[in-house]
Amino acid sequence: MSRYANALTEAITPYTPGEQPQDQKYVKLNTNESPFPPSEKAMEYAKEHLRSLNLYPDPAAEELRSAVAMSCQAVREEVVLGNGSDELLYFAFKAFGSALRPIVSADITYGCYPVFAEALGLPYEEVPLDEGFGIRIDDYKDKHGVIVIANPNAPTGRALEMKEIDALTAAHPDDVIVVDEAYVDFGGTSVLPLTKKYDNLIVIQTFSKSRSMAGARLGFAVADRRLISDINKIRNSFNPYNINSMTMSLGLGTLKDRNYTYANCLIIEKNRNFTVSELKALGFEVLDSKANFIFARHPKISGRDLYLELKKRGVLIRHFDKERISDYNRISIGTKEQMETLIEKVREIL
Amino acid sequence: MSRYANALTEAITPYTPGEQPQDQKYVKLNTNESPFPPSEKAMEYAKEHLRSLNLYPDPAAEELRSAVAMSCQAVREEVVLGNGSDELLYFAFKAFGSALRPIVSADITYGCYPVFAEALGLPYEEVPLDEGFGIRIDDYKDKHGVIVIANPNAPTGRALEMKEIDALTAAHPDDVIVVDEAYVDFGGTSVLPLTKKYDNLIVIQTFSKSRSMAGARLGFAVADRRLISDINKIRNSFNPYNINSMTMSLGLGTLKDRNYTYANCLIIEKNRNFTVSELKALGFEVLDSKANFIFARHPKISGRDLYLELKKRGVLIRHFDKERISDYNRISIGTKEQMETLIEKVREIL
Repeated sequence: MSRYANALTEAITPYTPGEQPQDQKYVKLNTNESPFPPSEKAMEYAKEHLRSLNLYPDPAAEELRSAVAMSCQAVREEVVLGNGSDELLYFAFKAFGSALRPIVSADITYGCYPVFAEALGLPYEEVPLDEGFGIRIDDYKDKHGVIVIANPNAPTGRALEMKEIDALTAAHPDDVIVVDEAYVDFGGTSVLPLTKKYDNLIVIQTFSKSRSMAGARLGFAVADRRLISDINKIRNSFNPYNINSMTMSLGLGTLKDRNYTYANCLIIEKNRNFTVSELKALGFEVLDSKANFIFARHPKISGRDLYLELKKRGVLIRHFDKERISDYNRISIGTKEQMETLIEKVREIL
Repeated sequence: MSRYANALTEAITPYTPGEQPQDQKYVKLNTNESPFPPSEKAMEYAKEHLRSLNLYPDPAAEELRSAVAMSCQAVREEVVLGNGSDELLYFAFKAFGSALRPIVSADITYGCYPVFAEALGLPYEEVPLDEGFGIRIDDYKDKHGVIVIANPNAPTGRALEMKEIDALTAAHPDDVIVVDEAYVDFGGTSVLPLTKKYDNLIVIQTFSKSRSMAGARLGFAVADRRLISDINKIRNSFNPYNINSMTMSLGLGTLKDRNYTYANCLIIEKNRNFTVSELKALGFEVLDSKANFIFARHPKISGRDLYLELKKRGVLIRHFDKERISDYNRISIGTKEQMETLIEKVREIL
């Protein structure tokens, strides 16, 4: 730290991303990426755009916003794009949070929520998951602020049903509800239709998981146009060119090739089912997951030890050294072959 | 605006980027882009990376940071990358600004500085340029905070010499000096060497102008490693994956192809000299520019009228409807052919 850092900078604890080894030698099941390349059409569009990268992107990103909107039965003014969905979470917190409107979320959830709140100097309130690691909507009854629900939740994989988010949003007309649907395409139910019903609901999705674009950074938020206009104001006062032109092209191509995305999601679901039943047969307890990862523990080996033993054997999974969940590991679902390697190595270890 | 926006969101005035018409029919001399495509090597690297975009980028961006560092005679720990240099300006303001440490900059300069300060709730102090639109270092004598100098300045194009920034930095040991060198490669002198001498100097550069990558979004900051560590902390608490993988590849390719960048800069300087002498011959007053744009006015036509008349004729330049400079227009320097078209249309108008 320098002697010039202000008090907030001094105090903040940054997010720790999962390991991203650059040597590629691991079976990488630690950061919930898709094991499949981006769609051919997406790559083709990006290639075509390379020669004109000397020009700035369209700061309003009208073409891609329209395409995203169409894919969500929304209109362009109800959509805003981010350099990954993380950026949109940050923008939403910045637009709507305040000393009197804390960020409210589960005690076990995506680690960026408390980091963003702290970086923005906003109060953060944790609501404990129930004993089975589920979100109980009732527990939010007396909570107010910007309520953030990851659905499916990470790292648990557990999902809420639409009627639960519906009830939560209806019960909180003076609060902003943010539903982070990063993992919704693997068996969850999107609450996008509810953005027509409520003016206080923001649904955030990403191209990083089901759409195989983690390396390209693209997320989007859908909400009532007034909420979107507020988020856009924050975006325009921070980085109006936040989405680069290649990513816009990739996004457009991906949306024109939706069958590819669907097919990949089905494969992941199938591989998840395979992995769950294999792990259960080996004595693991596995939470019911609707995501492209599972959360599991074994009675005979600690989460940390399993993580370390697998790493030694060339398989990376994610361990969180955190109360309540330190027995568990989060395992991303990859190709059938990758999951077979995982099972084989786990067998060796047990 | 929604009824959920907080007070700061309500109050802020976002930056207005230059027009980015999407139909491509204009001779576009309004946003200081390079008229040349990215380097062939850069495009080749990006293409090679497309298939692995399903994986997250390296959040530490070690390879590109090292390459940038090497190109600046620095080490990796003295470099941080941004999604465009705008993001780094914002991060620096956020890391070092405070109620007691205002952002200090010229009255006529890059429009994002006051926008970022406002978005961060930071006080902003303007120091007027002198009558010839130059920055007078002496005028900053009693100013304290985060002092931001665009060098060359925009939209004037006027540059300070290294000894002036040296004197400024030496005179302000308790302040942070940010030198925004977005346009330095077109004839200015970079103060990068001074980052070895001072622990309070941050130099920010971009790949958007001389390196033909405005559409790819890449900027970098070089400073004492403690300052960089502070900025990195802000980056990691906001968006650890701020640079997408394709942009990293393009950046690496561009740095391996530096002769291409140099050659393009020389062409731009030549075209600038041509344009300046043609415009002067037509009666324009043109400020002495070290950038890839010029700032000019004509005694017989208002800045706004010239902008509108040129736009009618298919040439876009930038007019700022702002006190002191509303007589002027900022004209980006493009290819010889583009500049000839400009001169021809100006002749028609006069």
